[in-house]
Amino acid sequence: MAVSDRIILGIDPGTIVMGYGLIHIKNNVVKPIGIGVIKLDKLDDHGLRLKMIFERMIAIIDEYKPDELAIEAPFFGKNVQSMLKLGRAQGVAIAAALSKNIPFTEYSPRKIKMSITGSGNSSKEQVAAMLVQILGIEKEQKFLDATDALGAALCHYYQNKKAGGATKTFTGWKAFLAENPKRKV
Amino acid sequence: MAVSDRIILGIDPGTIVMGYGLIHIKNNVVKPIGIGVIKLDKLDDHGLRLKMIFERMIAIIDEYKPDELAIEAPFFGKNVQSMLKLGRAQGVAIAAALSKNIPFTEYSPRKIKMSITGSGNSSKEQVAAMLVQILGIEKEQKFLDATDALGAALCHYYQNKKAGGATKTFTGWKAFLAENPKRKV
Repeated sequence: MAVSDRIILGIDPGTIVMGYGLIHIKNNVVKPIGIGVIKLDKLDDHGLRLKMIFERMIAIIDEYKPDELAIEAPFFGKNVQSMLKLGRAQGVAIAAALSKNIPFTEYSPRKIKMSITGSGNSSKEQVAAMLVQILGIEKEQKFLDATDALGAALCHYYQNKKAGGATKTFTGWKAFLAENPKRKV
Repeated sequence: MAVSDRIILGIDPGTIVMGYGLIHIKNNVVKPIGIGVIKLDKLDDHGLRLKMIFERMIAIIDEYKPDELAIEAPFFGKNVQSMLKLGRAQGVAIAAALSKNIPFTEYSPRKIKMSITGSGNSSKEQVAAMLVQILGIEKEQKFLDATDALGAALCHYYQNKKAGGATKTFTGWKAFLAENPKRKV
């Protein structure tokens, strides 16, 4: 895989909505090639939601053939039950990529915001506005849930660019704990 | 799939050890056909652990060709971070089954213990002892981490037997919440 020509799939997996966005990088020019949301709220069974996440992820991968996956992964939530569910949604999405031999990297919401807007405390709207500017995408309300996903893909590109093209994979959790030693389990 | 001849894969997915056990049911005779543990403690990266869980799950499914998956799934843990990690491990294992079109059902540890020993508060050793008696397996210390997985498979068989062979799938979470309304998110 040449670093100068690759496709990055960014996802923001949740248990109600999963956003996704894809960017194509060729000779350091970044173009958005896909954006969308998978709505899971009509399925009232957690198992069926996981099944849908897996199937839609496989369909997206088969359609766009991304080289890498970047995930927006919050490490904290309000309670253990919601975190277990979120973990499952993330796990299923990650497994879809693993089943296609696509490496993944995870980024905290703060890291993605920082990478896109320069501030870790930006609002969703500020991230979206910046993506409109950087990628020239249309500002559509219906895709607001997917802007974090697109942000994750772009953040991953910026990270690799800084690192001289080297892809750091599977390091999100560890890196997070290293940077936040007090939050260690 | 004839209910009278089928293979159930039981798993107990954790982030350090994943236990698995398989039973074959033919004409209401239950035989253990596989048991083992996947040790993840040597991998210090959470992402690599997820990758190993997925790959080993696929290998087990390809080898034994189970018809159904039963998961021991604790719904509660000590903190949000460990639950997120556990959720991911569960999600990856579930996705491996989904990728092979194998339906899954989840059972709480209490439900499995109740089903095997008649008491929801049994120790791991008591469950193991009962499995030795029911399935005629050898009592081996190294497989203690897999007895809960084998228990999940057997519990799933008992549940279906009671239900006249009908398989209830994807209902674990919902059923749990229905039975425990106060624990609703």
